[in-house]
Amino acid sequence: MPDQGFIDLGFARVDTDRRRRCGFPEVVFGHGKTPAEALAIARVLLEREPVLLVSRANSAQAEALAAEFPSTRWHERARCITVERAPWPKLPGSVGIVCAGTSDLHVADEAAVTLEIFGGSVQRFTDIGVAGLHRLLAVRDALEACTVLIVVAGMEGALPSAVAGLVSKPVIAVPTSVGYGASFGGVAALLGMLNSCGSGVTVVNIDNGFGAAYAAAQILRLQS
Amino acid sequence: MPDQGFIDLGFARVDTDRRRRCGFPEVVFGHGKTPAEALAIARVLLEREPVLLVSRANSAQAEALAAEFPSTRWHERARCITVERAPWPKLPGSVGIVCAGTSDLHVADEAAVTLEIFGGSVQRFTDIGVAGLHRLLAVRDALEACTVLIVVAGMEGALPSAVAGLVSKPVIAVPTSVGYGASFGGVAALLGMLNSCGSGVTVVNIDNGFGAAYAAAQILRLQS
Amino acid sequence: MPDQGFIDLGFARVDTDRRRRCGFPEVVFGHGKTPAEALAIARVLLEREPVLLVSRANSAQAEALAAEFPSTRWHERARCITVERAPWPKLPGSVGIVCAGTSDLHVADEAAVTLEIFGGSVQRFTDIGVAGLHRLLAVRDALEACTVLIVVAGMEGALPSAVAGLVSKPVIAVPTSVGYGASFGGVAALLGMLNSCGSGVTVVNIDNGFGAAYAAAQILRLQS
Amino acid sequence: MPDQGFIDLGFARVDTDRRRRCGFPEVVFGHGKTPAEALAIARVLLEREPVLLVSRANSAQAEALAAEFPSTRWHERARCITVERAPWPKLPGSVGIVCAGTSDLHVADEAAVTLEIFGGSVQRFTDIGVAGLHRLLAVRDALEACTVLIVVAGMEGALPSAVAGLVSKPVIAVPTSVGYGASFGGVAALLGMLNSCGSGVTVVNIDNGFGAAYAAAQILRLQS
Amino acid sequence: MPDQGFIDLGFARVDTDRRRRCGFPEVVFGHGKTPAEALAIARVLLEREPVLLVSRANSAQAEALAAEFPSTRWHERARCITVERAPWPKLPGSVGIVCAGTSDLHVADEAAVTLEIFGGSVQRFTDIGVAGLHRLLAVRDALEACTVLIVVAGMEGALPSAVAGLVSKPVIAVPTSVGYGASFGGVAALLGMLNSCGSGVTVVNIDNGFGAAYAAAQILRLQS
Amino acid sequence: MPDQGFIDLGFARVDTDRRRRCGFPEVVFGHGKTPAEALAIARVLLEREPVLLVSRANSAQAEALAAEFPSTRWHERARCITVERAPWPKLPGSVGIVCAGTSDLHVADEAAVTLEIFGGSVQRFTDIGVAGLHRLLAVRDALEACTVLIVVAGMEGALPSAVAGLVSKPVIAVPTSVGYGASFGGVAALLGMLNSCGSGVTVVNIDNGFGAAYAAAQILRLQS
Amino acid sequence: MPDQGFIDLGFARVDTDRRRRCGFPEVVFGHGKTPAEALAIARVLLEREPVLLVSRANSAQAEALAAEFPSTRWHERARCITVERAPWPKLPGSVGIVCAGTSDLHVADEAAVTLEIFGGSVQRFTDIGVAGLHRLLAVRDALEACTVLIVVAGMEGALPSAVAGLVSKPVIAVPTSVGYGASFGGVAALLGMLNSCGSGVTVVNIDNGFGAAYAAAQILRLQS
Amino acid sequence: MPDQGFIDLGFARVDTDRRRRCGFPEVVFGHGKTPAEALAIARVLLEREPVLLVSRANSAQAEALAAEFPSTRWHERARCITVERAPWPKLPGSVGIVCAGTSDLHVADEAAVTLEIFGGSVQRFTDIGVAGLHRLLAVRDALEACTVLIVVAGMEGALPSAVAGLVSKPVIAVPTSVGYGASFGGVAALLGMLNSCGSGVTVVNIDNGFGAAYAAAQILRLQS
Repeated sequence: MPDQGFIDLGFARVDTDRRRRCGFPEVVFGHGKTPAEALAIARVLLEREPVLLVSRANSAQAEALAAEFPSTRWHERARCITVERAPWPKLPGSVGIVCAGTSDLHVADEAAVTLEIFGGSVQRFTDIGVAGLHRLLAVRDALEACTVLIVVAGMEGALPSAVAGLVSKPVIAVPTSVGYGASFGGVAALLGMLNSCGSGVTVVNIDNGFGAAYAAAQILRLQS
Repeated sequence: MPDQGFIDLGFARVDTDRRRRCGFPEVVFGHGKTPAEALAIARVLLEREPVLLVSRANSAQAEALAAEFPSTRWHERARCITVERAPWPKLPGSVGIVCAGTSDLHVADEAAVTLEIFGGSVQRFTDIGVAGLHRLLAVRDALEACTVLIVVAGMEGALPSAVAGLVSKPVIAVPTSVGYGASFGGVAALLGMLNSCGSGVTVVNIDNGFGAAYAAAQILRLQS
Repeated sequence: MPDQGFIDLGFARVDTDRRRRCGFPEVVFGHGKTPAEALAIARVLLEREPVLLVSRANSAQAEALAAEFPSTRWHERARCITVERAPWPKLPGSVGIVCAGTSDLHVADEAAVTLEIFGGSVQRFTDIGVAGLHRLLAVRDALEACTVLIVVAGMEGALPSAVAGLVSKPVIAVPTSVGYGASFGGVAALLGMLNSCGSGVTVVNIDNGFGAAYAAAQILRLQS
Repeated sequence: MPDQGFIDLGFARVDTDRRRRCGFPEVVFGHGKTPAEALAIARVLLEREPVLLVSRANSAQAEALAAEFPSTRWHERARCITVERAPWPKLPGSVGIVCAGTSDLHVADEAAVTLEIFGGSVQRFTDIGVAGLHRLLAVRDALEACTVLIVVAGMEGALPSAVAGLVSKPVIAVPTSVGYGASFGGVAALLGMLNSCGSGVTVVNIDNGFGAAYAAAQILRLQS
Repeated sequence: MPDQGFIDLGFARVDTDRRRRCGFPEVVFGHGKTPAEALAIARVLLEREPVLLVSRANSAQAEALAAEFPSTRWHERARCITVERAPWPKLPGSVGIVCAGTSDLHVADEAAVTLEIFGGSVQRFTDIGVAGLHRLLAVRDALEACTVLIVVAGMEGALPSAVAGLVSKPVIAVPTSVGYGASFGGVAALLGMLNSCGSGVTVVNIDNGFGAAYAAAQILRLQS
Repeated sequence: MPDQGFIDLGFARVDTDRRRRCGFPEVVFGHGKTPAEALAIARVLLEREPVLLVSRANSAQAEALAAEFPSTRWHERARCITVERAPWPKLPGSVGIVCAGTSDLHVADEAAVTLEIFGGSVQRFTDIGVAGLHRLLAVRDALEACTVLIVVAGMEGALPSAVAGLVSKPVIAVPTSVGYGASFGGVAALLGMLNSCGSGVTVVNIDNGFGAAYAAAQILRLQS
Repeated sequence: MPDQGFIDLGFARVDTDRRRRCGFPEVVFGHGKTPAEALAIARVLLEREPVLLVSRANSAQAEALAAEFPSTRWHERARCITVERAPWPKLPGSVGIVCAGTSDLHVADEAAVTLEIFGGSVQRFTDIGVAGLHRLLAVRDALEACTVLIVVAGMEGALPSAVAGLVSKPVIAVPTSVGYGASFGGVAALLGMLNSCGSGVTVVNIDNGFGAAYAAAQILRLQS
Repeated sequence: MPDQGFIDLGFARVDTDRRRRCGFPEVVFGHGKTPAEALAIARVLLEREPVLLVSRANSAQAEALAAEFPSTRWHERARCITVERAPWPKLPGSVGIVCAGTSDLHVADEAAVTLEIFGGSVQRFTDIGVAGLHRLLAVRDALEACTVLIVVAGMEGALPSAVAGLVSKPVIAVPTSVGYGASFGGVAALLGMLNSCGSGVTVVNIDNGFGAAYAAAQILRLQS
């Protein structure tokens, strides 16, 4: 049987050709999968790739994988599982992950875990709100020293605009569902970021730390 | 016939008791009124009050009033008519009107016209966007020197958060309909301001420069 | 190491410069913080400030603070923690907090707790709905005697309009999430308030009793 | 060919059975019909009924009908055409049509024209806003003396709640598209009315003066 | 102390004047009240009125009232409490309550309980969907024999249009939150009803069986 | 150069392989194309196909095509251009196009033009509203005699539910933007159709008569 | 008593005439029905029909039916109950059910159960996302070999467009509520499908696998 | 007077420090500016920078600039003005701009003009819709050869997902307002892109070709 670029497990078609086309192996979306299903997919991928990332995962899935793959790690706050049979080659440069508030940390963590499993270096900047601009100005040079910036914010989502006006590096904005009332589960932040007056800000889905990190990794990869 | 506190013109009941209750005379909402209707209402009010403000007005209404009241002024960009038979007593303190971009000027003008007809002093700060924070930091002390701040912004509406974090004075935010796409005619700015991380920011309707100015005038009036 | 105006705790940058800039010390947003995190931030602030407010807090946080700061109080219905090492200087004037219905009391409480920890005097007016206007007219003079009015209402949010038409004082409207069906968790009340025909009504986020109180405190502070 | 209860004109099936089932003859929705189409339908109906109402009409349609039916009247502000070959029997009682502002008059007119062509008596109350409650209280007894009340309001749509709390009669609320910004073309008023704390308020579509009047006529008809 | 028309319980101002103004005594909105609060309000009202209705109630409130008022009844599916010290005078006529599906029964029950406590006669028509029109046509004459019709429907909310085209009686439509996906908790049904091509359909809030019944009772009362 | 299945005109890549894959030739979306662009694409397609359809077209495009292709027809109300070098093979069966009101005719026309250019037989049923069910019941047998039904309706969009409950044939529903206020440009009708209690109703975009007709043609084609 | 085409159970009117009109027997919407109610309806239908389908069902209902009807089956992931006293006649052709991801399987199952109880043949294609087009191209011929295609997708809902461009068969798209953030419970997928550039795609409600299957069965039935 | 990093023109504060901080000079948002205002700002910037870009511009502004700056160019379809006193240094790499349909060309043009004035190389791929995947597969290698991809699409916005699954390069998605009905002016495309199953896709505001190009230029700049 010829190689079709995927393995059909019946309940899933695992894309084994992803790295060739896209540079990184397939990432498993854990939501709604049984531990057995997650494990079956993991086997297919880890036979071919040194590392595995399961996003939106749960601890039962993590246990299933850990029983078979000793390097399994469960990142609780990030809701991610990683398995590292061998390290992925280091990516050049570094990514700054900036958080507007402490409630955004689980999204920032998802971004950090994603970057690190794919060889990216991460620098964290936590609790940098626009209501205290001195906290932002104090790290201006450190931000500029990064290759790419991921800026995570809930509520009004104003931080990416302020950051983009201070540095020359690409800014990827992640709205979070933090807030209440007219934040509408992150919609206010999302709209704020889409309408940013800071030129060049790009945006991913609400709480999508993984997506921002993947985009950042693609940019780092260009330097190599 | 006893004084009911209003004059019934058939098509309108003019509230002649407003100043006694609320401190300022009734303001006429010009939208949808014929010049003749606007004039009839103006006559009732100017018989009793030294000044008149018509908001959301048009030039035909202005011409009708000017023919009878020589002190009529047509503020085109603010879409307001003012008539000043005698000046209203000066209010103490001053109001800073801050604009995020040059497209917001007609809203800022509506606020300024409103304040000035009711005796308020206005200081203007134009084109202070969060994408160039040095422009904001340069006026920090001048903002703090005002009694109240009106902050006008479209797009992501982030300026009020940044201002509120720098000064101790009440900040009234006015979202404007400036923007395109997912700004949804000012909704993005409105949501941003309602979710502001800057404590104490209050908000008025989109493009409602009049409402912000009226609220600011009420605050100034408390000092007297 | 020079004073940067904030203390970096790793998971949070506490803004120790807030009172100098904004007149009141930083308020802690309790949502999503562990008791240990809340305590660590409280230590930094209470070393420098006589009082502390944690909004959107929970009882576990309250217990952690109470173990170290004897003056800790847990305001359950308001979901707030206060600590008062020494009283904050009294603010001049008073704030009237008006409620449309009994279901709005937790939001009114949040406003009252906020004002009182920052030295404000509060007068409560409870269950004043527009469907029984005599209940409103009966307190008209008492409302006018306040310096600022906070009007809390769910459902159609009509009360601020009626109040603003009766008094000369600034009215800050707080929509609440009370209602069902097409109230959409407070959106109907929010829109009603933003479109108020009562001149000068300003609005804060749904259920944001804290924000309304903070704005009221800023206005009281102007009188001193 | 047996009577099917409708006449098929090819481009329209005119419901000639409506009066038998529903008590009033079919009303023509003028929007999008050519003058010739409107005339053809009018002929079918006026052959069978003493009166005709075309809602959402235009002046070209009115001219076409007037050329053939001398009693044609074009109600410009109401955007309605009426033809009255013979008067419809008088309905008992009366309907009070209450307007919050002068901008709502075209909707109130549509309601009045509808009621009058179907034999209803109308009493108008104009410009009764909640921001000046004395204007409402002054007409309380006159409102109670009506059989049904239609309350028309834009912006925050608070008037029906206040009226419903003062009288014992059915209140039909009509939101109008008057307002700007977050009024969203009448949505704010619509939501306000749907969430009214005034028990028993029922609501029709935005700007639907016709629908409110038709419902009121149905109620009047019950008394006969 | 003069009679103000309300009793101030501190946490609530009970409107004791409601029946004089509005024809029916105040109805208590149970949501968010403790059993003790509900009981205190019930005492005030039952001292003055023969009957009491608590809507959006719970069983704990019902138990508190039952301990003191033996005629207390807990209507579980309707989420209502009634107390009947003495029967309310019978209202003339009758109200037909029509349900589109069996999932709408709790809303229809709320309407029925409300009408019956205020002396209204109710006739129920259950499970009359537009996807089987013969079920509707079979009851056409029975519907016409009622004085007012309340039509309850979720999903696309089409039933009121069909009913209104068959009868001459007022139709009050109640959208329900029954459905899934793009029903958006009753919004689809609400919009369907507001845009009904059946002339004269009026609408109340989603799931608001109480409001529809109250409006129907007001209409019945006109006949007496 | 090998055949890639498309012709690259620089400003457009014309899909010349569509008929082989999908059974019908590519249809041109006219919106936003200059007459010259429309003509260039038409040349590519008519060289290979006997018929051409341009949807969302304008008269300038029609003139450009007519100058070169004598069989060009401009269907004004349907906003379509057809060119028929040779007739497309007749499809078996027939499609019933049902309209709720006369305002929906341009959408019904777009559907009819689309079907006819691709060999479909069309039967029209006009002005069949649910507010006069006898008009629908009168054509029940004629509807059942069709192979597929396209049901076009604005406002509350209830007609597809009623039709689907009467016949055994596939029903494709087309919401139209007819209505005002809370019809939101066809959203009310769209939601009504998506939530239809009539089993098996499928839905296309607002005003998308073309899409419904294309789907109907695909079903007819299955019979051949 | 004459046969009215329905049986009135008091709480429900069971449509016993559905098969005669619509080709398939009534399907029971399980949501909100007690086991006893579901059983009573099942008795009425199974007395007349060989098969029964209860959608949106629960296991308690399934147990109640199983106690009386031995052929009862509970399809957990599909949330459906089927009872098969005798098989329904086989429908000609086959339906391909295509899934974009593994999280969509419960919706695909609902479609499959519905088709199979009504005699349809089903072919499953699982986990065919647009982010790995080779997985789609690999099954192109198998898809074309089906009579109708049901395409199930959450997130951005792009799969139906890609499928429709590859085959000549009718495509019925089912958006699912899979996703997070700005997927808004399936709205993003729904809008994507309604705006599909793939000609002829029709759409059903979010998660409505039943509706898609019913429409497919109607199309299959046309071939017989 | 010290250099503040901006020039205050009264109506605008021109950010002359932008290039130092952000790598590119300030871009002028033309919307709402008079030609004289645009010219005044252009003078300030062109005194300091070799190139100028005015986005969302009009031809009157272009004429005003052309009269003073001979290298002024008016890009009509892109609604941009460029002035090039001296060329900006070439950026390494190249950007592929991919269009889903011919209606998206003005947005693609805005992106191209932006990139070219800032030294970027652009390769255009026009009319690559997902309904004809062979058109996409034919350019797969050419896309991979670019450094960054900007993918522009209206309607359901599915193209970025398909592209992202084929290449390893960063994909910036631009939703356009092309479509009708439930496309809601680009919202459907925006949501589709935010929910893309193609890992790493980032998104800018509807029709924001400028923003996407600016972000792409920032990424190119990293390579130098």
